Amino acid sequence: MSGGALADTNMADLEARINQLESRLAETEQQADAAQQQAANFEFHGYARSGLLSNDEFSGATGTGAYMSAAGALGASVGRLGLEDDHYVEANLVHNRVTDNGSKAYFKIMLADGVETNNDWAPDDSDLNVRQLYTELSDLTWFSGAFEHASIWAGKRFDRDNFDIHFVDSDIVFLAGTGAGIYDIQLSENWKANVSIYGRDFGTIDSASTDVENYIATINNRFGAWQLMLSGMHSVDNDNRTTDSASPTQRAEKGVHALLAYHGDNFYGLSDGFSKTGVLSGVGLGSELKGIGSNGNLNDDAKAVRFFTYGATNFADNWRIAPSLMAEVSEDRVKENDQFKWVSANVRLAQVFNPNFEIVYEGSYQYMNLDNTADQAKGSFYKVTLAPTLKLSTVGGFFDRPELRFAVSYVDWSEALDNYSVSLASDASTMGNGGEALFALQMETWF
Amino acid sequence: MSGGALADTNMADLEARINQLESRLAETEQQADAAQQQAANFEFHGYARSGLLSNDEFSGATGTGAYMSAAGALGASVGRLGLEDDHYVEANLVHNRVTDNGSKAYFKIMLADGVETNNDWAPDDSDLNVRQLYTELSDLTWFSGAFEHASIWAGKRFDRDNFDIHFVDSDIVFLAGTGAGIYDIQLSENWKANVSIYGRDFGTIDSASTDVENYIATINNRFGAWQLMLSGMHSVDNDNRTTDSASPTQRAEKGVHALLAYHGDNFYGLSDGFSKTGVLSGVGLGSELKGIGSNGNLNDDAKAVRFFTYGATNFADNWRIAPSLMAEVSEDRVKENDQFKWVSANVRLAQVFNPNFEIVYEGSYQYMNLDNTADQAKGSFYKVTLAPTLKLSTVGGFFDRPELRFAVSYVDWSEALDNYSVSLASDASTMGNGGEALFALQMETWF
Amino acid sequence: MSGGALADTNMADLEARINQLESRLAETEQQADAAQQQAANFEFHGYARSGLLSNDEFSGATGTGAYMSAAGALGASVGRLGLEDDHYVEANLVHNRVTDNGSKAYFKIMLADGVETNNDWAPDDSDLNVRQLYTELSDLTWFSGAFEHASIWAGKRFDRDNFDIHFVDSDIVFLAGTGAGIYDIQLSENWKANVSIYGRDFGTIDSASTDVENYIATINNRFGAWQLMLSGMHSVDNDNRTTDSASPTQRAEKGVHALLAYHGDNFYGLSDGFSKTGVLSGVGLGSELKGIGSNGNLNDDAKAVRFFTYGATNFADNWRIAPSLMAEVSEDRVKENDQFKWVSANVRLAQVFNPNFEIVYEGSYQYMNLDNTADQAKGSFYKVTLAPTLKLSTVGGFFDRPELRFAVSYVDWSEALDNYSVSLASDASTMGNGGEALFALQMETWF
Repeated sequence: MSGGALADTNMADLEARINQLESRLAETEQQADAAQQQAANFEFHGYARSGLLSNDEFSGATGTGAYMSAAGALGASVGRLGLEDDHYVEANLVHNRVTDNGSKAYFKIMLADGVETNNDWAPDDSDLNVRQLYTELSDLTWFSGAFEHASIWAGKRFDRDNFDIHFVDSDIVFLAGTGAGIYDIQLSENWKANVSIYGRDFGTIDSASTDVENYIATINNRFGAWQLMLSGMHSVDNDNRTTDSASPTQRAEKGVHALLAYHGDNFYGLSDGFSKTGVLSGVGLGSELKGIGSNGNLNDDAKAVRFFTYGATNFADNWRIAPSLMAEVSEDRVKENDQFKWVSANVRLAQVFNPNFEIVYEGSYQYMNLDNTADQAKGSFYKVTLAPTLKLSTVGGFFDRPELRFAVSYVDWSEALDNYSVSLASDASTMGNGGEALFALQMETWF
Repeated sequence: MSGGALADTNMADLEARINQLESRLAETEQQADAAQQQAANFEFHGYARSGLLSNDEFSGATGTGAYMSAAGALGASVGRLGLEDDHYVEANLVHNRVTDNGSKAYFKIMLADGVETNNDWAPDDSDLNVRQLYTELSDLTWFSGAFEHASIWAGKRFDRDNFDIHFVDSDIVFLAGTGAGIYDIQLSENWKANVSIYGRDFGTIDSASTDVENYIATINNRFGAWQLMLSGMHSVDNDNRTTDSASPTQRAEKGVHALLAYHGDNFYGLSDGFSKTGVLSGVGLGSELKGIGSNGNLNDDAKAVRFFTYGATNFADNWRIAPSLMAEVSEDRVKENDQFKWVSANVRLAQVFNPNFEIVYEGSYQYMNLDNTADQAKGSFYKVTLAPTLKLSTVGGFFDRPELRFAVSYVDWSEALDNYSVSLASDASTMGNGGEALFALQMETWF
Repeated sequence: MSGGALADTNMADLEARINQLESRLAETEQQADAAQQQAANFEFHGYARSGLLSNDEFSGATGTGAYMSAAGALGASVGRLGLEDDHYVEANLVHNRVTDNGSKAYFKIMLADGVETNNDWAPDDSDLNVRQLYTELSDLTWFSGAFEHASIWAGKRFDRDNFDIHFVDSDIVFLAGTGAGIYDIQLSENWKANVSIYGRDFGTIDSASTDVENYIATINNRFGAWQLMLSGMHSVDNDNRTTDSASPTQRAEKGVHALLAYHGDNFYGLSDGFSKTGVLSGVGLGSELKGIGSNGNLNDDAKAVRFFTYGATNFADNWRIAPSLMAEVSEDRVKENDQFKWVSANVRLAQVFNPNFEIVYEGSYQYMNLDNTADQAKGSFYKVTLAPTLKLSTVGGFFDRPELRFAVSYVDWSEALDNYSVSLASDASTMGNGGEALFALQMETWF
């Protein structure tokens, strides 16, 4: 037998094996594709924090959290680190569907719960509820022009473009409720807009069995790094709801709200990182500046203005810093002639020791001058926290999770604020007396 | 060097690469297989609707939905399009397990919630609960003969073979509860049967601390397109439950229920599509014709008969139609000598404009003649709805979801029905006065 | 053309196809890998039981379950088979994250619910709540020495090393709550330890608005098959909570709890299988022996000791047996001078008929001698159960699930125990009179 003949034989053999490989691979490609598609059709996302909080007498601490100060009822929060006593979870179950022509549907259910009890079986405390339930369509072949990259949604949701200062547990705007809207309408090369209508419930007038709802129309514009968001709202019959006997008032039926913000992609021009600065203002129902249109207990001519700025950067090897400042003045808010002023400053620092460990420091200061027409109080709130922190990875910076932390905090405030409450209700909870050390063991994660 | 030697060298090289490819591919095949299996072991399915509803005074509309008319309390629904004010979700978490010999276990948890509030954080309104919790075994190698393709289940569930008129939000039969059963027993070539026992709870007699339960035995037969379903039920002590003082009555302890239906695979012989027609009847506890055995407040000699027919077809290029008709007569239902008659007709039309957009129309008419022994009322209910609708895909027809819709409806009814209630309870809610326009923004999906 | 030239041509062709195969396979390998990773990042696990229970008068049976006897309130359970009337589910949603250097984060949400109603829509009965919510970090590159294989966690959870006698629905220890801890510290070659702090809530003193919490510090040691677990606990102000007026008492503020156990990897040295034997004892708050630190209603000098042993083996072809014994003596438990003694024996047998069917038998006997200072009672509780059982697979033995079962049981007890309650509260529920047959249809699964 010649070499050529042998080669032919072998070659036929190799060719057969290649044929087989090709057909097996084609099948496996399909299978891998199908598996990936199947996995992609379902998404699981979440946020959670859960921990133990104790005061220095080893009693469980109640009424704490970032909104623990007297001004907390007005939306004035302090640094959250080491103050949280709750078990809060958001579990998102997402279903994706993609058609052959590339159109996409995104459906989300958000289950959420927040309880204080440390016990594992707690149905009586359970606050489990569905916070979001909506569908969003995108990449519709039918959309073109300014709408080419737009997506459209309906249902109950948190608005996509809400943003927050994580460290003080406060959104800048938290637009949420039930409605419909369109994102990313390209009005010009540098102008993108979202429009939406959201409904909120303020309660029921039993005699007429009507729901009092608030309808909020919003246009949210982005011009490069600048954001201008305008909202108008109308709640028929809101002035006819039974008012709290402790604070009879002429409730607002309408409102206007505006946000102007600058979203910087560096830390105030000084270093890498980010910084965001802006101002919010509103009248009537619009004077609830964070949760737009969510508060029905506002006076007819309530008015408020709020300033904020915050950012984060690395300021040395293995050191990170995230300062924030928020301040608000509001008047005629719940009753004619009430007046509330507060300013809240917070700094979080992280000192990185290795890929899994850092020490986190937080200092909070808040000044408040509060006049609910019946009582007046002014003074300051202070908090310092030290938190040795384990992370899955310190590489991702401030916003990398999960974290497991031990935190020790000291909180105190001016005596003038002891037992003061913004609310006029006789059973309103107050912040009690200051001067307390708090110990926390907590996990926090998101994904 | 000769060409043959060179060829040999190259060939050895190619063979080595082929060897490597074969072993890599074998590994990848396993991995793709494992990934696909892993993905298949978990399934996520759901149904959801969520939206905003407003009347023409921009107040939230309460008490609406497909069962809003006076006869709604009897199970008489009207077209649902544009009337729904709730946020309803069913989230199914499924675990599959398959043994090496091919036996299969299917386990389902259904979480469900339904609230009216448009607010995103609503634990006080939350109705989140577990509606289904069952396991089904199939392909057991041990099963043979008539049972060869049978599956067997136990737990809490909706019966597999329930079916509904989606457009009027009404099941034809909705058998559900806790029990056990066998599906798909092949009794002859053309006869397949399911048998089951379901338990339902009617409440508690506190003095004796006994649960009053209703046990329902059902045989559900299919002979080709024909279905004959027979149910008998028995609820010991149901006549000893405290009766509503407004309607003292001798409650039934037993009942019989029958359904005869024809499941057509075309639209009444006229065109492609489907149509289903049938009649239900029952006595005693069986006179609740839809939710078999679910109503304990029925009179000892209650009797009822119901007729239904519905279907769907394309009747022109880009036009679809889905008519339905349901009618019921019941007597001695809650009290001796009460009598209730109603007939409900509904038509939904869809006009397709492009792959993502259609306009949907719905017209509903309902006639009712109601005598609860204390009051009598007869008259009609009308509704028309127009709903521009965005779909991920219009190709799938009436039942393709998700849909995002805006709907405007006008509803009205005879003055004689104003404020009439089937219930004799003094605080029974009524339908109020008619003549109202309703505006809806809603999403609906299932998968 | 020579054979060599032809071979060269073909060879170039084959080589091209191999090149293509290699590049396609590389892509597919990545895709299969990604799909597998994506699937692995989410895990769904669960436990569930759901079924129908009826007594011989076809009334729903209430107040049953493994803790139905008079001593049940003390943690004395009997064999569960055929007694369960509830729909209990644990649905675990798990998110895994692995970093490039191999560090791992494991996050778990456990949703749980337990209701008695057989109805499918039961929001008013719903007990849906979040029982676990924690994060665990492991394989941290930073950990070394004794901590090299340690994992660390924080949040709300069931302790990882809890263990139970499944057949009597009782954990040996059930440590759970909110806290933090470290698992698997290797203190010497044969000594592994876990340390943890857990917090529990006992209620609120409204006047001072303080939470009464119990803090439990535990070290749980394993020396080969031996386990020594020591817990100390302290609950400030627990003696100041309002006491049940029916049983005024000096509540404990502190407690100590110890468990010594032997985990055998065979059936008492007799055959294959397993067996576990041990003793638990505690004083003060530690005298709740199962749910460590979970009971705040314990007397200042309460004391208790409990013995347990259980195991499982195959004792003949197609026969399995699982006996268990538990006994406890406690004194000064709720009030000075109360005294409670009980012993509970249970045997479950399974006779395997084929890969999907077995008949399960269970016999339970419990002796109790109970003195709550106001009333005394002693006597016995008996139960026998026969349960034809369908399984997906009988190969996995006692612990293979799912199972679908029909069970008929007969339960009876000494007349002296009729209507006896351990609790002194006037409205305490009692076990009523004995001598009852119970019928059950139930599914049970875990995965």
